Amino acid sequence: MSATQKHVYLFSELDQAEAYVQGNWDSTRGLLGGKGANLADMTRLGVPVPPGLTVTTESCNAFLEAGEEFPQGMWEQVLEGLKVVEGKMGRKFGDLHDPLLVSCRSGAKFSMPGMMDTVLNIGINDAVAEQMIRQTSERFVYDLYRRLIQMFGSVVMDVPDEVFEAVIEAQRKVSGVKTDAEMTAEDWKVVTKQFKQIYNTYTHEDFPEDPYLQLKLGTEAVFKSWNSRRAQAYRNAAGISHDLGTAVNIQAMVYGNISEDSGTGVAMSRNASNGKNELEGDFLMNAQGEDVVAGIRMTEPISELKTRLPEVYNQFREIARKLEMHYRNMQDMEFTIERGTLWVLQTRDGKRTAQAEVKIAVEMVEEGMITRTEAVRRVKPEQVDFFLHPQLDAGAMKEAKKIASGLNVSPGAAVGMVAFDADTAERWAKHEGKQVIMARPETKPDDVHGMLAAEGILTSKGGRTSHAALVARQFGKPAVVGVSELELDLIARKMVVSDSIIIEEGDWISLDGTLGEVYLGQLPTVVPDIKNPGLIKLLSWADEIRKLGVWANADYPRDAQRAREYGAEGIGLCRTEHMFFEAERMPIVQRMIMARHTLERKEALDQLLPLQRGDFEGLFRVMDGHPVIIRLIDPPLHEFLPSFEELVQGLADLKVRTQHFHTLSEIDSALAEIRVKQDYLEQVEALREQNPMLGTRGVRLGILIPELTQMQVRAIFEAACICSKDGVDVQPEVMIPLTSHVNELKIQQSSLEEVACEVMKEQDLEVKYKFGTMIELPRAALTADEIAEVAQFFSFGTNDLTQTTFGISRDDAESGFLMEYIQRGILKENPFASIDPNGVGKLIDIGVQGGRSSRPDLEVGICGEHGGDPKSISLCHRLGLNYVSCSPYRVPIARMAAAHAVLEENP
Amino acid sequence: MSATQKHVYLFSELDQAEAYVQGNWDSTRGLLGGKGANLADMTRLGVPVPPGLTVTTESCNAFLEAGEEFPQGMWEQVLEGLKVVEGKMGRKFGDLHDPLLVSCRSGAKFSMPGMMDTVLNIGINDAVAEQMIRQTSERFVYDLYRRLIQMFGSVVMDVPDEVFEAVIEAQRKVSGVKTDAEMTAEDWKVVTKQFKQIYNTYTHEDFPEDPYLQLKLGTEAVFKSWNSRRAQAYRNAAGISHDLGTAVNIQAMVYGNISEDSGTGVAMSRNASNGKNELEGDFLMNAQGEDVVAGIRMTEPISELKTRLPEVYNQFREIARKLEMHYRNMQDMEFTIERGTLWVLQTRDGKRTAQAEVKIAVEMVEEGMITRTEAVRRVKPEQVDFFLHPQLDAGAMKEAKKIASGLNVSPGAAVGMVAFDADTAERWAKHEGKQVIMARPETKPDDVHGMLAAEGILTSKGGRTSHAALVARQFGKPAVVGVSELELDLIARKMVVSDSIIIEEGDWISLDGTLGEVYLGQLPTVVPDIKNPGLIKLLSWADEIRKLGVWANADYPRDAQRAREYGAEGIGLCRTEHMFFEAERMPIVQRMIMARHTLERKEALDQLLPLQRGDFEGLFRVMDGHPVIIRLIDPPLHEFLPSFEELVQGLADLKVRTQHFHTLSEIDSALAEIRVKQDYLEQVEALREQNPMLGTRGVRLGILIPELTQMQVRAIFEAACICSKDGVDVQPEVMIPLTSHVNELKIQQSSLEEVACEVMKEQDLEVKYKFGTMIELPRAALTADEIAEVAQFFSFGTNDLTQTTFGISRDDAESGFLMEYIQRGILKENPFASIDPNGVGKLIDIGVQGGRSSRPDLEVGICGEHGGDPKSISLCHRLGLNYVSCSPYRVPIARMAAAHAVLEENP
Repeated sequence: MSATQKHVYLFSELDQAEAYVQGNWDSTRGLLGGKGANLADMTRLGVPVPPGLTVTTESCNAFLEAGEEFPQGMWEQVLEGLKVVEGKMGRKFGDLHDPLLVSCRSGAKFSMPGMMDTVLNIGINDAVAEQMIRQTSERFVYDLYRRLIQMFGSVVMDVPDEVFEAVIEAQRKVSGVKTDAEMTAEDWKVVTKQFKQIYNTYTHEDFPEDPYLQLKLGTEAVFKSWNSRRAQAYRNAAGISHDLGTAVNIQAMVYGNISEDSGTGVAMSRNASNGKNELEGDFLMNAQGEDVVAGIRMTEPISELKTRLPEVYNQFREIARKLEMHYRNMQDMEFTIERGTLWVLQTRDGKRTAQAEVKIAVEMVEEGMITRTEAVRRVKPEQVDFFLHPQLDAGAMKEAKKIASGLNVSPGAAVGMVAFDADTAERWAKHEGKQVIMARPETKPDDVHGMLAAEGILTSKGGRTSHAALVARQFGKPAVVGVSELELDLIARKMVVSDSIIIEEGDWISLDGTLGEVYLGQLPTVVPDIKNPGLIKLLSWADEIRKLGVWANADYPRDAQRAREYGAEGIGLCRTEHMFFEAERMPIVQRMIMARHTLERKEALDQLLPLQRGDFEGLFRVMDGHPVIIRLIDPPLHEFLPSFEELVQGLADLKVRTQHFHTLSEIDSALAEIRVKQDYLEQVEALREQNPMLGTRGVRLGILIPELTQMQVRAIFEAACICSKDGVDVQPEVMIPLTSHVNELKIQQSSLEEVACEVMKEQDLEVKYKFGTMIELPRAALTADEIAEVAQFFSFGTNDLTQTTFGISRDDAESGFLMEYIQRGILKENPFASIDPNGVGKLIDIGVQGGRSSRPDLEVGICGEHGGDPKSISLCHRLGLNYVSCSPYRVPIARMAAAHAVLEENP
Repeated sequence: MSATQKHVYLFSELDQAEAYVQGNWDSTRGLLGGKGANLADMTRLGVPVPPGLTVTTESCNAFLEAGEEFPQGMWEQVLEGLKVVEGKMGRKFGDLHDPLLVSCRSGAKFSMPGMMDTVLNIGINDAVAEQMIRQTSERFVYDLYRRLIQMFGSVVMDVPDEVFEAVIEAQRKVSGVKTDAEMTAEDWKVVTKQFKQIYNTYTHEDFPEDPYLQLKLGTEAVFKSWNSRRAQAYRNAAGISHDLGTAVNIQAMVYGNISEDSGTGVAMSRNASNGKNELEGDFLMNAQGEDVVAGIRMTEPISELKTRLPEVYNQFREIARKLEMHYRNMQDMEFTIERGTLWVLQTRDGKRTAQAEVKIAVEMVEEGMITRTEAVRRVKPEQVDFFLHPQLDAGAMKEAKKIASGLNVSPGAAVGMVAFDADTAERWAKHEGKQVIMARPETKPDDVHGMLAAEGILTSKGGRTSHAALVARQFGKPAVVGVSELELDLIARKMVVSDSIIIEEGDWISLDGTLGEVYLGQLPTVVPDIKNPGLIKLLSWADEIRKLGVWANADYPRDAQRAREYGAEGIGLCRTEHMFFEAERMPIVQRMIMARHTLERKEALDQLLPLQRGDFEGLFRVMDGHPVIIRLIDPPLHEFLPSFEELVQGLADLKVRTQHFHTLSEIDSALAEIRVKQDYLEQVEALREQNPMLGTRGVRLGILIPELTQMQVRAIFEAACICSKDGVDVQPEVMIPLTSHVNELKIQQSSLEEVACEVMKEQDLEVKYKFGTMIELPRAALTADEIAEVAQFFSFGTNDLTQTTFGISRDDAESGFLMEYIQRGILKENPFASIDPNGVGKLIDIGVQGGRSSRPDLEVGICGEHGGDPKSISLCHRLGLNYVSCSPYRVPIARMAAAHAVLEENP
């Protein structure tokens, strides 16, 4: 490294830094660190940033390589730079006339905990303090002084921070005050003196009076902290390279608490709750930054600044606008006003609600600030979910008493009366018609019935993968977990929040699962409108980007109608058996199943035919011009019958009762009933299977009971013909479930063709249709090349495919070992929530490749629940599927996720 | 085709034919057809074959191409050749002094039904007949004559054969006789006359008196039959090319029924039952070939010929030896003696029993006739099975009354009393200790309990894939099905065989499932010795060839001992839970499962530890120097508990009984019992799963109840250390079942290592071991690359892998839809019997490739039941596995199959 090497860049020397790295913003951040680059960037924009300088990351690396020695010329450059800062501020570092104080902060390329953070107020010593007191006030200066010693001591010299805190605590008691704000000048003077003694005790040195020594030690400490154990561990975990080094930022201090025309505040360039294009924030006059956050004094809304200091307000508004234009995003800014002069200390992209995100993204496109693609990229698919769940009313939330915060593990709002156990929750909800929030220290599988009955779930323990969190997400229940301020007393039936607020069982509370917040009382909720104009625009832009089609799973015309409204381009799955489950149809279905001979079965099927035809007619009419995939019957037949256990129990009870009968006629009729039940039981038993999931279902039923699927096919084609005659553009696709071998499909195809031709001849009409299959067993995916010779389309049933690929019964596992696997990190994610890419995903890949090798124009989709999961949608896009099909409610999310999948390819 | 083209080859002109095709035996067969080439081959060897000639397949093609016209010069060549034949026989075709008759037969390259077969006795007309009568007898000649007209009429001129048969039938009635043998000369004369009239009626022509016209029409008919619809359909089905054409063989007739020193017979060059190197066969003096087969006259054993015609006998023995040497295989020959002169009419490789196959193959190696590889190639792996099943005593079979034959669908012998329904079969077998054969018209799933109780199964209907056949093979029960001679009268409880023999229920019969034969009475059985010296030699030769290792699945030392004796090179699967099922251990196991807390569980496990350690010690000692793979506990825990249904029923019964109690103490104790049972029931219910096959089992148990697998690991390593101290070379391999994710394996590995190190430290001994996993879930195979980073070996569990790949629960499906699938040909084979190559096989391939990509020296085997199935073994070889592991009884078959797998690669 040559002697002429530039180690130090003033905030005003960004152009030089850029020229040196000859690169982009990324390499500039590499040289100056994130914070330094940002401060320089604002400076170049003409934003009033307190002047300062950045010692480069290269200097840090040189320092560490040289055995912790500053590289040649570096310190001299710091001193030179400091001169420039002094000039700009009109104050001098260590000067006894008008002293300049500075801060010293680390700033690596990536934000990184574990490194030395911040030392403020460098430059005070006893003499400087005396002079400053003359210019300001004793309390102000000793407050600064004691802070310097505490920060310097703990951060630079490793003095335990608790010792300093104990001194303050003691002094508060001596003075009989509760908060630091009440401390007097004398108090801080005493504390400062004691801090110096502590410093000496722990470091065996006096606190350095020389301001330059303070600065030098601070700079060294920042450099050294790059190699601290905590920083190294963090870099290892986060995959950050160890050779980046950290920069050091030395910046002039400004004071918002120095006078009545001083102040400090934080503000967003737009409203973070609703996205309105207006400044939003709070400020305090004559105060320090941390006072705003601490909430000891009542802050004023930013609009008040207009009255107080109209020029400053206008200047700030202009700066906000400028920063927005520059960063092309809503900004979250910190500012300080020192004696009427505005300084901006920091700016960053502002956090916002989903509602605001959408509004801001759309308006910024309209303002020409960003492109449509950028707008789509900014709104996460999950944020679209916001528009589909009830939310706590934003206005009411501001007014209401927020009593605690926890982990936001399952989104949406829930309002209800607290119940402290699952049985109470269930009883209140089911039998007393109450709205209930179930609160527990943590939940177990035994609690699931209560969780299902409740509006929302609240726990004091547990994390993002706790049982409560997993179950809540699973069933779409809003939940806040791990609220440590909460103490539940299950004996006294009450909970205490932060040792102060007492909530009795039955009291109303409100949860915001999206933010993880708990409110006292019964807050109003709103259902955000899916017809939000901004959202509609944004989704239409997403549609322009995405390549995957988005279809919906719908069994009834009303579901299909909703799916269309939400933008579905087809029905990817109509589960015909759901129609069987309707109350008035069940007896016919049961008669069909229990039929002792074909004729009896035929009679039952004949009764079902017009009902199913009606169902399909409705679907075709709603989906006019769009494909409708109808899956033939799938579940094992015993699902339509009473359970075996129930029947055994019922029979046993009946036998016990019979013993109490005395009259002959009573006994006779009881015995007759027993015989009937016994008979029924035997039939049910014959249908029982040890592993029904792997049993007689899907296409296997179609092969064993051809008349059943033939009835369904007839219903489909009769409905198609009737609708077609009415001018409806029908596009039926008949889907066979649970195929494992191409021969199953061949048999079903010829059976179907026969019926289809028959119906079309009867109706004297030609209806175009497709014939295809679910791919939901590993063998189907593995032999997709053979299967695609018969099937014109594939639909991956990833629920079943996940079950067989993992060998996991979902029903059993999600209340059993699977949750333990996820909690223990054996599985990173629930494979039933997000497609397992290495196993199931690989099988889908094999299936798609195989299928297309035989039939290049094969239509391939997915209709499992994964079809509405953004991560899974992204995988489907990468694997080259044609569409995803999901629940109607998730169609908007899927449209967004499909666009993101495209954008992920060009980050 | 030039005029000098050679269309006809005498049987003695094989060299010329070979020179013409300039090729190998295959192209010679292509020119002369299979039959022609064989007759010529025997002729060249000097075997006395009646002289004749072959018209080539090329001539046939030319004939068909030219619009059914003989190619130029062909007929002239036939006539020339015929002259040579006349010269050799000293008779002349159509001559009135010493007439020659000939046969005319088709002969394509491959044996092929659907073509014209045979016309014998060509050359007779009224004048020739008169002359022949003078030389022989009237009956003899008219018998020949009527045969000619019938064969010529039906085969060449398409006159319906039934019409001729009706005439014979009528004549038998007229003469009051039952068989053709009783017909007189006059009878045949009348028949001949009527045949001529029929011929005229159907063809509108007289039967051709001109011998040359007879021959010409016969030759044309053979050529034309190549393009008959039936022949074309057969070729399409068998994949035989349509342009091969057929040859025509014209051969001098010889007569075994012409005099007292004439005769005919069939004989094998070695004993087909036991393989002894001696002629074996039967003959009849003064008889025609078909008389031997028809069984009307009592045949004499071939050894008798030695006495009758010693020179002929010796000549035949030499010929047999010569043909064996030439064809390097045991020969099955047909011969005729005409007036003391021996003629050989046909030879082919002889069919033989498994026992004979082995003996002959081994002896031919010792005689230097074939190589060891050829010997191994000849003995099918399934034939080795013979040595492992009881068989009917061969001597007794000869003496016994064979009453019927059917399909040999499941090998082995069964002897028992007939029962005509499943309940009777079960009652007799289980409760009365009888040996039972269950006989039914056909079987249904309801009959399975009877089939299981029976020694063997017999049905009158059904084919190789009938329910009876499938179930019998499944459970290793000998079975003969589709015995059409059998008529069952289930009401009268008897069966009638061939309208004559009556068998009452309870009568003894014997079945040979290997041959498909049914015998009257209780035949003795023999268990062929696996220590058969020939077999041992043959297996050792197979061992030299095979590349796959053959290991065995064994849970107990006695099984391991047998496996070693049968040649197993390791234990591929020890199912540790089988040890739990032993009666005295079950209570401890149940206590372990039901434990309410860890301490209670620990106590039960401490009791199990020494028992398991003892099991492993025994295994290690038997397998000294060989690997032993021990699989940690696999089945779901509820398998060790009483069934839920049983408990519900028991509790209900108890409640009913309680109602009859009167004293307080009775009621009290009953109530206490109810409480205990209720409690137990609840615990069992908590363990119930909807799909246990996909539930909490395998490694999932190991993760949820670590102390259980830790006990097992401790038992393994304590046993290993103890044996090792005794000088035993222990090679333990610990196997984790049901892995779906590498993280499961990582957890188990660290748990195992901890215990293993602990034990080895305690014992102050180092024991080398391997750590690996079953690959029995699709996901494990798909992510084999990740899994092999932890596992040192894979063992494919193809039973489970088939279940999840197909989505089939074996327990349910094999008594349900799967059998129907196989019967209907939807699946060609039961995938639980033979690995499905396209689905499961592909997954194994992915698993092997993936595993070896991470760990090139990965040890890969298979331990499902497929490990003993020859087809599956062949697949395992092709997929590059290191070994197969099967039941000890199948080890010899597997050794043979593994050798065949190598040989299949170089057919």
